[in-house]
Amino acid sequence: MTDSLIQPVDTQRRAPRRIGAQARTAHPAGAGDGHPADAADGHEAEEILRRTRASVDPELRAALDGLPGPMRRAALYHFGWQHPDGSPAAGGAGKALRPALVLAAAAALGGPAARDRAVRAAVAVELVHNFTLLHDDVMDRDATRRHRATAWTVFGDADAILAGDALQALALGLLARDVHPAAPAAAARLADCVVELCAGQHADTALEGRGPGGVGLGEVLDMTEAKTGALLGCACAIGALYAGASAQDVDALDAFGREAGLAFQLIDDIIGIWGDPRRTGKPAGADLAARKKSLPVVAALASGTPAAAELAALYARPWDAEDLESTVHAVERAGGRDWAQVEAADRMARAMQALSRAIPEPERAESLLALAEFVTRRTS
Amino acid sequence: MTDSLIQPVDTQRRAPRRIGAQARTAHPAGAGDGHPADAADGHEAEEILRRTRASVDPELRAALDGLPGPMRRAALYHFGWQHPDGSPAAGGAGKALRPALVLAAAAALGGPAARDRAVRAAVAVELVHNFTLLHDDVMDRDATRRHRATAWTVFGDADAILAGDALQALALGLLARDVHPAAPAAAARLADCVVELCAGQHADTALEGRGPGGVGLGEVLDMTEAKTGALLGCACAIGALYAGASAQDVDALDAFGREAGLAFQLIDDIIGIWGDPRRTGKPAGADLAARKKSLPVVAALASGTPAAAELAALYARPWDAEDLESTVHAVERAGGRDWAQVEAADRMARAMQALSRAIPEPERAESLLALAEFVTRRTS
Repeated sequence: MTDSLIQPVDTQRRAPRRIGAQARTAHPAGAGDGHPADAADGHEAEEILRRTRASVDPELRAALDGLPGPMRRAALYHFGWQHPDGSPAAGGAGKALRPALVLAAAAALGGPAARDRAVRAAVAVELVHNFTLLHDDVMDRDATRRHRATAWTVFGDADAILAGDALQALALGLLARDVHPAAPAAAARLADCVVELCAGQHADTALEGRGPGGVGLGEVLDMTEAKTGALLGCACAIGALYAGASAQDVDALDAFGREAGLAFQLIDDIIGIWGDPRRTGKPAGADLAARKKSLPVVAALASGTPAAAELAALYARPWDAEDLESTVHAVERAGGRDWAQVEAADRMARAMQALSRAIPEPERAESLLALAEFVTRRTS
Repeated sequence: MTDSLIQPVDTQRRAPRRIGAQARTAHPAGAGDGHPADAADGHEAEEILRRTRASVDPELRAALDGLPGPMRRAALYHFGWQHPDGSPAAGGAGKALRPALVLAAAAALGGPAARDRAVRAAVAVELVHNFTLLHDDVMDRDATRRHRATAWTVFGDADAILAGDALQALALGLLARDVHPAAPAAAARLADCVVELCAGQHADTALEGRGPGGVGLGEVLDMTEAKTGALLGCACAIGALYAGASAQDVDALDAFGREAGLAFQLIDDIIGIWGDPRRTGKPAGADLAARKKSLPVVAALASGTPAAAELAALYARPWDAEDLESTVHAVERAGGRDWAQVEAADRMARAMQALSRAIPEPERAESLLALAEFVTRRTS
């Protein structure tokens, strides 16, 4: 299902992955962004993300290495570059999706030169993303992130909060020092986005504290847009700013990222309930067992159907083993799955529309499309 | 003692306060900064702070009012403009010392026009100061700030952390939107200062966890500079940047603020032990009773005298009523009081030297001198 949101996927395209990867190694790093040949295989996004890391990591590392000891230690651990004892680790924490969107948007609207000049802005966006992760984990008391213990469990609340504070300062400081004419507008937009991310995190925490019946679908969609869509949109908008795009095109890129972010979250929620455990690595219905108020569940509860009442009753009492299956079926019968699939497709269609307003030529939009396609099936 | 750090104070100058205040109301707000006539009474600083609030509060309120609901509520409460239930309060939380330093430095080096154009930067500095207070109170579990319950005790940790995050973003966002040519350099400097403030807070937390004998005097001075001096220096430096001052003068203003900040902390620590309870509002020796590792105590412990050993023994065991007096005397006999007085005078002398490098004419430096004098006797 998720593949079909953007375009029908020819399953044959998946086979020659090795050939595609080999072909790409002949390209100089970064030169291929937005190049028509890049779309020739389904692993375009992975290659874009690999090139993003190659472009972004040196400046990201340099920024973190400049931090005073305690914040450096917590930050390098959080990014996966150090073990808790400070010894070097392989890194690889995070996919660098947001910096990839910055660079892809800059390349799509301004070519390779614009991409090269946007690396610092891409680093700033990645720093902001990670500042919010550090703080969210403290607030949510989440113990695991990217298969490792969260920073606050290793270094304590204070150092995790301080590391997050320092990463926000690093991000906005990098943009303040960037001589690119778009840097002030990018910094203003990124600062606004931080406020929106904070509002999203607050809403998420507040919704967690309410019973499932007391949560409106509109509220959860707004929270998802603020918490997930805003920074994806901001990343795309900043790339457009660095390409010297018009205000209209910058806003269109923002809308593209936001809508793709919502599609991503909807699909993530669908997979959390109906995903194949062999592919997701999580037991079937894991999100339901955790009583998450994910979008399909909230839509089902709001449906006014007999199945909605049944679902509300199931969510209100302790479960035994058979209840999980009943709950999955209740969400489905109340229309939660259908709604989420239609909504995700609709969001992705809106993302495509916004993108084509700013970039009418499909071949220039290919990297951005590949990244959008990637996020909407990443956990499947 | 504190009065004499800058200049001998003629006690007669305190009497005609009302006359001085009346005379000043004839001046248009703000026009008097740096004007020679301003130094004619000892309440110059209070008048500067009052004018600062008048200049800064409208833009500060507008920035806070633009926040989404939950962060706005916590921030307006923290600033004293709202009660916990959201009803209006009188405000007046905080002295606005840091924005006053921004405006006074701008006026001293660039005249009234430079001061007027630096209001947004002054707001940014005040926002950063309050972001760090919000987060420090969460980390330190401090329940009281400015005679009111701290924000985290009223709204919870998450909302206090998010409000702090949002205030940092507002601060750097304001500078990113400021068209003044000095805004990017000011933003870069303010971002660096945030990182230094985080390092200072980390050091403070780390020192708290150690026994009094395990704390070096140099460490405590470094921590004090990072936690208190850095933002006072940054405020002065940003004012100088907005006046178009040379890099050398900007750095001299930074040094002025840092050294004055250290002098302030030293005097605050002296008052915390030997201050007159009728003037401080705290019982005599309150800081000792709380076992604070204040600068005179750490200096006394590091003195290598027999009194130092006695003091270490007193700090290592529970007290009864007579021990407080013995401890005060031990700090004194070990030279802690003398050292702190000499060090404070030395820091203030260095502050004056730095100031006169950038502003050789005493009459132009009067507002900054008045503010420095104010902070070094504010709690006496």
